[in-house]
Amino acid sequence: MSRTMRLAVIPGDGIGQEVVAQGLKVLTAVLPSDVKLETREYDLGARRWHATGETLTDAELASLKDHDAILLGAVGDPSVPSGVLERGLLLKLRFAFDHYVNLRPSKLFPNTDTPLAGRPEIDFVVVREGTEGPYVGNGGSLRTGTPDEVATEVSLNTALGVERVVRDAYERAQARPRKKLTLVHKNNVLVYAGHLWKNVFDRVGLEYPEVTTDYLHVDAATIFFVTQPERFDVIVTDNLFGDILTDLAAAVTGGIGLAASGNINPTGAFPSMFEPVHGSAPDIAGTGKADPTAAVLSVALLLRHLGHEAEAARVEAAVADDLAARDGSPRTTDEIGDALAARVSG
Amino acid sequence: MSRTMRLAVIPGDGIGQEVVAQGLKVLTAVLPSDVKLETREYDLGARRWHATGETLTDAELASLKDHDAILLGAVGDPSVPSGVLERGLLLKLRFAFDHYVNLRPSKLFPNTDTPLAGRPEIDFVVVREGTEGPYVGNGGSLRTGTPDEVATEVSLNTALGVERVVRDAYERAQARPRKKLTLVHKNNVLVYAGHLWKNVFDRVGLEYPEVTTDYLHVDAATIFFVTQPERFDVIVTDNLFGDILTDLAAAVTGGIGLAASGNINPTGAFPSMFEPVHGSAPDIAGTGKADPTAAVLSVALLLRHLGHEAEAARVEAAVADDLAARDGSPRTTDEIGDALAARVSG
Ligand SMILES: CC(C)[C@H](C(=O)O)[C@@H](O)C(=O)O
Ligand SMILES: CC(C)[C@H](C(=O)O)[C@@H](O)C(=O)O
Repeated sequence: MSRTMRLAVIPGDGIGQEVVAQGLKVLTAVLPSDVKLETREYDLGARRWHATGETLTDAELASLKDHDAILLGAVGDPSVPSGVLERGLLLKLRFAFDHYVNLRPSKLFPNTDTPLAGRPEIDFVVVREGTEGPYVGNGGSLRTGTPDEVATEVSLNTALGVERVVRDAYERAQARPRKKLTLVHKNNVLVYAGHLWKNVFDRVGLEYPEVTTDYLHVDAATIFFVTQPERFDVIVTDNLFGDILTDLAAAVTGGIGLAASGNINPTGAFPSMFEPVHGSAPDIAGTGKADPTAAVLSVALLLRHLGHEAEAARVEAAVADDLAARDGSPRTTDEIGDALAARVSG
Repeated sequence: MSRTMRLAVIPGDGIGQEVVAQGLKVLTAVLPSDVKLETREYDLGARRWHATGETLTDAELASLKDHDAILLGAVGDPSVPSGVLERGLLLKLRFAFDHYVNLRPSKLFPNTDTPLAGRPEIDFVVVREGTEGPYVGNGGSLRTGTPDEVATEVSLNTALGVERVVRDAYERAQARPRKKLTLVHKNNVLVYAGHLWKNVFDRVGLEYPEVTTDYLHVDAATIFFVTQPERFDVIVTDNLFGDILTDLAAAVTGGIGLAASGNINPTGAFPSMFEPVHGSAPDIAGTGKADPTAAVLSVALLLRHLGHEAEAARVEAAVADDLAARDGSPRTTDEIGDALAARVSG
């Protein structure tokens, strides 16, 4: 019996191309021999937008849908006006494919840098809501460009949207040894959205009596990220707070070069998308200096999502071993990819 | 000739009472002999709310208005539902008195703890917008408490509101040696509010050719707060981003026990309000363990705002000297206040 993994690949811009190549290298090396990998590449991002003015066509969206998963490198370039690719491509994909679980694990691996003194133990995962909140694009402006301009941004939150992501987070907490779940919001100021989140969080919690819960305001959470990150196990939070917290989490766990993420539709109705948290880093593109580790860890999340748990664990172990073995001498993007591919096949 | 400083004092709850007492002690010690201090205390906060159900009456608001400035300790208690005192008292004051500049300096003093390895130089000030954005309280919910609930929060931003705080930030940057101003927003996602902020920031910048400017997304800003905080001089940002960033800033500069803030109406139409960033800390209230330094530094901001620059500088120098002299042996709230009062009068 042979199986096929149909993978859509969006290398994107800058170092996106380079790190995705390493991700695919490791994926190929780790996949069981009875799984056939079929990839299809999509030319999306800044270059494409400059060439055609398009960010993502309906035909491409339909074609992307017809895959088991999507691997994305990074898109963006300073030459593209802010918002064009974010709203027209990245967020369009997250919303169109109902990626309501934006999964971002944070782990401080041995032998990696952290700006924190005393190297606390860090091993938590942020479950960021991905399809609601201030990200819905529901805003506008009046008398634009004049001294009388008024601009709005509306955060939309639904019980349906909050409950499904909160439930996913409880499931993840339940499956981890410490079984701890922290809700982060700002319910003392954003009282309507905040109360919805808190009520749903408390109600769903009744179904998970083994999970210990707590609540933090987002401002207080940033304090604990740098003073006591070891207190966190699973965090569930809104789209915008999750965006902010996960960059901070990446910073304290060795930098954005190691941070992986999954934009997940747990129902399987749409393909999920996996991407490093970092951007396209045009300043180092083409120099071979990009660290592909975050892309490779994103491949691990992809494998786990598609049911290849053993292979996911092998990729993660390879990364941990590779980081532990680093002696500070510089390696190219390609060399790191080769080393990781060798470890997973070894 | 003799002058009078008419000060409204809101000690509030928990350690608020204790730290405000030290702030007043230092203020009394530092004031020039020809300035007469007149204080009036207001019983506001959790205790008052439990006793009367009131957070802030119209009569109190009118009476508070009739002062040169307000000194606030901290309000809040876990026994009060989230949002009641925040919206009904703290934010009500900020909005009623049009405190559009929420000023939060961050400085890593010698001989203080920071969670950051390598002790970077940190000396920046965040100018947080205080009267707009997601804090306006413009939200609602539909089918509340049901599985079909929808909850909204609207961020309101006006050219008037953005321009006045941006201009204030340019003035502050212009007056500092490094003359650098960073705008923090999320204009790749919150495109309407983000473009308003960015356009105003760029336009006003033309009037300040000596000020170097840059722009960071809020998520990226949190990274730099822990990896390169020395890059910041003055930061201007929206109400919610400012809330998050200033707690993180406090955490990396020795903790919330040292962070001061001013809720300022630069026009003088209303009294400005000065308060430590920390909360009422009911867990240590009454133990004498509260550090009054943030309250005392808030008094320095108050003095500067009222034109007593030399006295403000003396208070800040006293704090720096006191911190430098700390040898780790515990001192009570009162002892720290006494030491600071002695230094400013010495
Ligand atoms: C690029 C941007 C739209 C995106 C976000 O804000 O979600 C990014 O910051 C991220 O965290 O994936
Ligand atoms: C208590 C709360 C309303 C307040 C805020 O969010 O502004 C606090 O966090 C602050 O930073 O002063």
